[in-house]
Amino acid sequence: MVGVTDLVTFGETMLRLSPPRGDRLETAEAFDVQAGGAESNVAAGAARLGADAVWLSKLPESPLGRRIVGELRSHGVRTGVAWADPDGSRVGTYYLEHGGEPRGTTVVYDRADAAITTVEPDELPTSALESASRFHTTGITPALSERAAETTTALLRAAGEAGVTRSFDLNYRAKLWDPETARDAYEALFEHVDTLFVPRRDAREVLGREGDAVAIANGLAAEFGFETVVVTRGSEGAVALRNGTLTEQEVFDADTFDAIGTGDAFVAGYLAKRIDGGDVAAALEWAAAAAALKRTIAGDVAVITPADVDGVVDGAAGIDR
Amino acid sequence: MVGVTDLVTFGETMLRLSPPRGDRLETAEAFDVQAGGAESNVAAGAARLGADAVWLSKLPESPLGRRIVGELRSHGVRTGVAWADPDGSRVGTYYLEHGGEPRGTTVVYDRADAAITTVEPDELPTSALESASRFHTTGITPALSERAAETTTALLRAAGEAGVTRSFDLNYRAKLWDPETARDAYEALFEHVDTLFVPRRDAREVLGREGDAVAIANGLAAEFGFETVVVTRGSEGAVALRNGTLTEQEVFDADTFDAIGTGDAFVAGYLAKRIDGGDVAAALEWAAAAAALKRTIAGDVAVITPADVDGVVDGAAGIDR
Amino acid sequence: MVGVTDLVTFGETMLRLSPPRGDRLETAEAFDVQAGGAESNVAAGAARLGADAVWLSKLPESPLGRRIVGELRSHGVRTGVAWADPDGSRVGTYYLEHGGEPRGTTVVYDRADAAITTVEPDELPTSALESASRFHTTGITPALSERAAETTTALLRAAGEAGVTRSFDLNYRAKLWDPETARDAYEALFEHVDTLFVPRRDAREVLGREGDAVAIANGLAAEFGFETVVVTRGSEGAVALRNGTLTEQEVFDADTFDAIGTGDAFVAGYLAKRIDGGDVAAALEWAAAAAALKRTIAGDVAVITPADVDGVVDGAAGIDR
Amino acid sequence: MVGVTDLVTFGETMLRLSPPRGDRLETAEAFDVQAGGAESNVAAGAARLGADAVWLSKLPESPLGRRIVGELRSHGVRTGVAWADPDGSRVGTYYLEHGGEPRGTTVVYDRADAAITTVEPDELPTSALESASRFHTTGITPALSERAAETTTALLRAAGEAGVTRSFDLNYRAKLWDPETARDAYEALFEHVDTLFVPRRDAREVLGREGDAVAIANGLAAEFGFETVVVTRGSEGAVALRNGTLTEQEVFDADTFDAIGTGDAFVAGYLAKRIDGGDVAAALEWAAAAAALKRTIAGDVAVITPADVDGVVDGAAGIDR
Amino acid sequence: MVGVTDLVTFGETMLRLSPPRGDRLETAEAFDVQAGGAESNVAAGAARLGADAVWLSKLPESPLGRRIVGELRSHGVRTGVAWADPDGSRVGTYYLEHGGEPRGTTVVYDRADAAITTVEPDELPTSALESASRFHTTGITPALSERAAETTTALLRAAGEAGVTRSFDLNYRAKLWDPETARDAYEALFEHVDTLFVPRRDAREVLGREGDAVAIANGLAAEFGFETVVVTRGSEGAVALRNGTLTEQEVFDADTFDAIGTGDAFVAGYLAKRIDGGDVAAALEWAAAAAALKRTIAGDVAVITPADVDGVVDGAAGIDR
Amino acid sequence: MVGVTDLVTFGETMLRLSPPRGDRLETAEAFDVQAGGAESNVAAGAARLGADAVWLSKLPESPLGRRIVGELRSHGVRTGVAWADPDGSRVGTYYLEHGGEPRGTTVVYDRADAAITTVEPDELPTSALESASRFHTTGITPALSERAAETTTALLRAAGEAGVTRSFDLNYRAKLWDPETARDAYEALFEHVDTLFVPRRDAREVLGREGDAVAIANGLAAEFGFETVVVTRGSEGAVALRNGTLTEQEVFDADTFDAIGTGDAFVAGYLAKRIDGGDVAAALEWAAAAAALKRTIAGDVAVITPADVDGVVDGAAGIDR
Repeated sequence: MVGVTDLVTFGETMLRLSPPRGDRLETAEAFDVQAGGAESNVAAGAARLGADAVWLSKLPESPLGRRIVGELRSHGVRTGVAWADPDGSRVGTYYLEHGGEPRGTTVVYDRADAAITTVEPDELPTSALESASRFHTTGITPALSERAAETTTALLRAAGEAGVTRSFDLNYRAKLWDPETARDAYEALFEHVDTLFVPRRDAREVLGREGDAVAIANGLAAEFGFETVVVTRGSEGAVALRNGTLTEQEVFDADTFDAIGTGDAFVAGYLAKRIDGGDVAAALEWAAAAAALKRTIAGDVAVITPADVDGVVDGAAGIDR
Repeated sequence: MVGVTDLVTFGETMLRLSPPRGDRLETAEAFDVQAGGAESNVAAGAARLGADAVWLSKLPESPLGRRIVGELRSHGVRTGVAWADPDGSRVGTYYLEHGGEPRGTTVVYDRADAAITTVEPDELPTSALESASRFHTTGITPALSERAAETTTALLRAAGEAGVTRSFDLNYRAKLWDPETARDAYEALFEHVDTLFVPRRDAREVLGREGDAVAIANGLAAEFGFETVVVTRGSEGAVALRNGTLTEQEVFDADTFDAIGTGDAFVAGYLAKRIDGGDVAAALEWAAAAAALKRTIAGDVAVITPADVDGVVDGAAGIDR
Repeated sequence: MVGVTDLVTFGETMLRLSPPRGDRLETAEAFDVQAGGAESNVAAGAARLGADAVWLSKLPESPLGRRIVGELRSHGVRTGVAWADPDGSRVGTYYLEHGGEPRGTTVVYDRADAAITTVEPDELPTSALESASRFHTTGITPALSERAAETTTALLRAAGEAGVTRSFDLNYRAKLWDPETARDAYEALFEHVDTLFVPRRDAREVLGREGDAVAIANGLAAEFGFETVVVTRGSEGAVALRNGTLTEQEVFDADTFDAIGTGDAFVAGYLAKRIDGGDVAAALEWAAAAAALKRTIAGDVAVITPADVDGVVDGAAGIDR
Repeated sequence: MVGVTDLVTFGETMLRLSPPRGDRLETAEAFDVQAGGAESNVAAGAARLGADAVWLSKLPESPLGRRIVGELRSHGVRTGVAWADPDGSRVGTYYLEHGGEPRGTTVVYDRADAAITTVEPDELPTSALESASRFHTTGITPALSERAAETTTALLRAAGEAGVTRSFDLNYRAKLWDPETARDAYEALFEHVDTLFVPRRDAREVLGREGDAVAIANGLAAEFGFETVVVTRGSEGAVALRNGTLTEQEVFDADTFDAIGTGDAFVAGYLAKRIDGGDVAAALEWAAAAAALKRTIAGDVAVITPADVDGVVDGAAGIDR
Repeated sequence: MVGVTDLVTFGETMLRLSPPRGDRLETAEAFDVQAGGAESNVAAGAARLGADAVWLSKLPESPLGRRIVGELRSHGVRTGVAWADPDGSRVGTYYLEHGGEPRGTTVVYDRADAAITTVEPDELPTSALESASRFHTTGITPALSERAAETTTALLRAAGEAGVTRSFDLNYRAKLWDPETARDAYEALFEHVDTLFVPRRDAREVLGREGDAVAIANGLAAEFGFETVVVTRGSEGAVALRNGTLTEQEVFDADTFDAIGTGDAFVAGYLAKRIDGGDVAAALEWAAAAAALKRTIAGDVAVITPADVDGVVDGAAGIDR
Repeated sequence: MVGVTDLVTFGETMLRLSPPRGDRLETAEAFDVQAGGAESNVAAGAARLGADAVWLSKLPESPLGRRIVGELRSHGVRTGVAWADPDGSRVGTYYLEHGGEPRGTTVVYDRADAAITTVEPDELPTSALESASRFHTTGITPALSERAAETTTALLRAAGEAGVTRSFDLNYRAKLWDPETARDAYEALFEHVDTLFVPRRDAREVLGREGDAVAIANGLAAEFGFETVVVTRGSEGAVALRNGTLTEQEVFDADTFDAIGTGDAFVAGYLAKRIDGGDVAAALEWAAAAAALKRTIAGDVAVITPADVDGVVDGAAGIDR
């Protein structure tokens, strides 16, 4: 509760509404409700893994806005929310239908005009940002509105000026914008980013990169001057390039119960370990373990502990009794 | 399936998301899901009571849009929906938290920019309207957008030209507009209305009427030339004025499980009985019985049968075994 | 587990399928499942209140048959079941929809041709009957089939020959037979009955009795030679006439959660107290208390303890912590 | 809603009562409820895939009968039901317990004497049949009662006279009759059938056919003069023989959540594509895709859309966001 | 998050396990889970009403301990927990069965040897206490163990030395100790208490006071020197005596859904209003309103907002839409 | 109900509290509740498979104690319980969180000071023991308390004196004691044991045995004089050594839904078949089949029938309809 904040994240959190397994959005009689959003998922995961994390956002001052804050607080996240008038603002929602081969997982976004689309830097408690070790946001936020994009830039810039290490997860969402627009926006932000997380597929299809993950990492680092580039390759694991040094990490096998939030858990594990003083190799290992654990857990958030992550890294499982 | 349609209604239907009794929107882990909207509630109720009913609206061609249609169809309603591109449109939603004295029932609307706000007459299968006996809409629809208001007017006018009896339920919603704006809009529509349903409270507070229900009915009929005016008075029952003849109806006592949709059940009962050839007294009795039954049933729709309504009118209850 | 059995009951037990409160059979997505049947309700209630009770019946040797047995055993009832070939027999079911004023409670029986309709005395472990203190059955059983009626007569006769006190609850079910047929059947059985439980309404409408409960009790005792007649009067309480002595009992106020099984809980309380050595006044008091408790509990069975009943009789309630 | 009907099906629909996964019928506290029946499953699947489908059957005019109709209507099926007096008729039910290796899936039928066993052609709105493109029924219906078998024959004959293409799915149910009786009944119907769907196993064990699927198809077509024979081979896919031309189709891999209704989804996909003008190869592909999708969805009905089926055929899956 | 803490509370929080309404502990298949404890209920209620509240306690470092902390944090409470080794410590639990007249509400405590029974002042972050405006604990804590009683005394003394206003809710629990032992313990603590909350019944039966609430308040204030005494009288409302001035407050009518936590909501409302600068009359009004609202909400915690409380005080209810 | 008891078991049964799949103990809103304990699992499994089984234990006379008894009775187990005063005793509980690779299954025991820790032989109805064919207990019971260990010894001794065949399942629980203490306790009991069930891993890590399963079985039989030793090897199956004769048994493949209780189902299958007159090979086959079935079923108890087991042995599965 005292001292410098470890991690500040900024972004939208939505209500996630999800029917039971095997049921479809068209016919289910009840939806499970949870808070979900890339940047709050990272904050919650990192807080659960030991970081003192703050999440910044904008929400209507309504029961729905408050439930998002309450849920994040339950994971130990401190929240810095700009409260909007509930009469003229809304909470973004997304409907998630779990799939199963050959039926894909369906996501129906209903997030247009959410409160965060009007967020301005002055509304946010940016003092937390200035005393933080790390700042994290993703490529979803600038896609939400021009205002959100400007505020993202402003926060990244302010963080940089305060000497905060800034990380950015590309998180390309085809339902929000097209690849060209996204690429322009991303590249405009890259000058303010120290650590980039990017899926190999998005590097190729959105950023127009070629070659394998190592080539992508080297190219991006060379062109934009990132201190660290982490390229994820789905089931083939991840590669990190930091100051010219390459580190590879395999995935841990997982029984997937809910794949949503896996990437955010990966980032949370990485950042939490780095904050805790771990090197890149250790951080990647925690990232992979946190991601594997997340897959076994319902909801956007990796409801895990450091002991859980250590258990995966150490290879322990089974029934402990 | 043959011949002339009994009833056409037009309006918005939303997803209704509702936590279990005793739980609050802020903390509940699951929401029950249902379709709810004044005009579809009336169509469903009337269809269940024997009318051949068609509901006109606009929805995104998404799982959420389809579930609204499916649910209405299950009650026997035929649906005439203008399907909007799901990428640029949304389903309105509302969050309903059941109260209990002294905690009020909470409704959080998230209906701005729903697909229906862009509805135009040409998109709708208005041929059904032209061959119908009755057309019904409510004061919610013109509050949704200018376009929705224009389309409401156009449909009422077209119905009038086709000789269809037009009914209108005032349904003032303070969360959608202020009383003055609403009054202007209502009064502009009244020339196209044959039967007006209006709560005494709204007659006073929105339409600026004075006096008791009878005075209100007489005044409205005189000023706007309604064939029939039905004034509801909450627990004090209803009064109908038709061509100068007054009819009164008491409420039936009810254990209220879910009060939402009570007014729509009232209208459904009234219209179904009128369509079936009943006079105003019989229709009011069915209206009151349908409303009382609705209170005992979860959801917006009065899931009832003619036998249920007759049972209430006849005073039968208890366990039948 | 040793010695003489306190109570043997005989009759049909069905699967009870029931939607959540506020939902209708037409639309509910799930039904709660329970075993329910007048005579097993009495056995379970009495067993829970201290009696060593055995229930006799016939069921298919199927998962559904076994679940009825398992559920009754969980209340401490011993079961003497004639197992029918599952391929040619069925479990009776009933669908229960809880009402709420002015909507009545709906019971849909689907019990035709249940296994018990073919039950014969030789299939049943009637040795338990011969060593019992009391035998109880109801007017439902003879309504199920001719065979069931004959077996009811045979068991009552055998019990009488063995000196067992026989009680009979009229339990008229209008969905099973008409009053005239029922009256003839009842009256043919009355010579084998020592204790009659009869609702005042059924005494009037089915047995053709006139006057108040006392007159009814006297008339029935005089005409058929019952040792004891208990006439229940709904919310007005009950009257017992035993060997010319009248006892009256008021009802205990109850918040009704589930009214089904109230009458059976009444009988269970009465018999359990009599078996325990209580006099008629004490038995009636237990009967009324068990009935009131049942109303607060979901399901057919009064899931209660002697302490619960004593608590009601002593007037204790509130939160004990 | 206008013009000629695409598809008419005829058969029994039951209430399906099913405990949660991992629970047994013996001990589960609640059952999920759904409508299920081979012919209505086909109608619902085909309606969802674009066909204008009508389902003919007989049901009691009870809440349970109405819920079956309501559920089918929600999928867009039009229903032509002969309503039976609820006092003397019943809805068939079946209890479904999902298994898991090595525990098989348990189906307990309780369908004897269901209303459909008394169905006669005159009770049904057969005008829909006469103006239809296709008529479909299965080998379950003639197994239900002599009357149902006669009505099946009558409808097939009437369809043939009206020039409607008639399909028949063998659907042998060992719990309803023995192979010899079934074979006689099937073969008596085959003269009225244009398209036969038959599992290879049933062709061998019930129809006494030998050889592989192609040999079976050729043999059946030669002997009974079918225009089309579709032989399904479980995980080995299907073979269609139409006018001497063979088409093969592999299965699509599927994570099976609920296998019930897979065969009906196959038929629905096939018929919907044929109705839409597709050739046999395209229809088989839709059939296989619809069947694979069904496996991922709870309930008897394939709650799918044409886009879902196209997605499987095109090999798209994953999370779309 | 900055500056002086408004309120510090100290006490045990348990897991509350509760079957659905109408079900009994003996037979329910699932229990709802919540955190519940008098002092954390007060902290959560006060935090929700605007106070910066800290709760001090001791818990095992287990998933169960963490869930209590997470749940309290979700209401905005900051937690200062002494974490015990999970191998040698446990979380207290209580089983709650909701009653209904004439069946009382059943509470089964399983709280012996909970971690808090070993709590010592040095384990707790008492710095929060020293900078707080108010400290609150209840008569439950000293009943848990000698060590807990000593720590209660130590914290009250430390608070007094730091000039913190100390409040104490008698909360007599007959299942934890007898009245004589409790009275001795209470009276030993009273010298450290500024504000006493006491039910009239406990004042009489445990503290041996006589007379009406006013007499009790005067007597206690005179004997023990309390600055404020609040005597609650169940449905008859409350009386506060502060520095010789009497204030009375009626109860607000409430539909009781869950009575547990009503008294804690009362204290939370009182303290929150006092912290906010309100006088005793305003605080009592908030107390009564918070208590009435709590009764409508499932769980121990009053999940309410200042607007909810103001709404009750202002008499607003109904459906707001 | 007549004659000699087949099987008596003795041990603790706890309440098992378990969140839904994919949820964690920290965040789940509801827990499923079941009775679970090694020895009652064996009794229930054996009773379901045809044995007349009695379970001996000690429980508080509370709703929680009664629900354990009721649940076991529902499986046909007769219960011989020493009832403890509920005010000074408790039911042991355990919290079970289902895992999924790489997250292990979590068991949180809260069983210290459960009522059984004070159990004495004189409290138990040991007459059942003396007339039994077999007595079974496990290595959990002596770990609970010194008193429980003494009573275990006393019962084993009494059984031996009465000529009852005594079996013992090692069931080492690392959360209850360390391997050395456990080994000493086990070895002191071995003189009273005829049939030992031991996992190969425990034989090695706790009993200090070396070599493969056969070597372990031979060594244990030689050293302690067991008539029969059954060594289980997880997925590699089991080996039994009886009077010098070796029998091997493979596992049956299983889709694991709930692994808890697998070992108890194995023992139940073995003992039920032996009681039924089967030889060791037949008993091992039943054991393996019962264990595989258990894995597919929620809860501690193998809710199975002899027909289920025979079906696995015979290799039948699929959908039977």
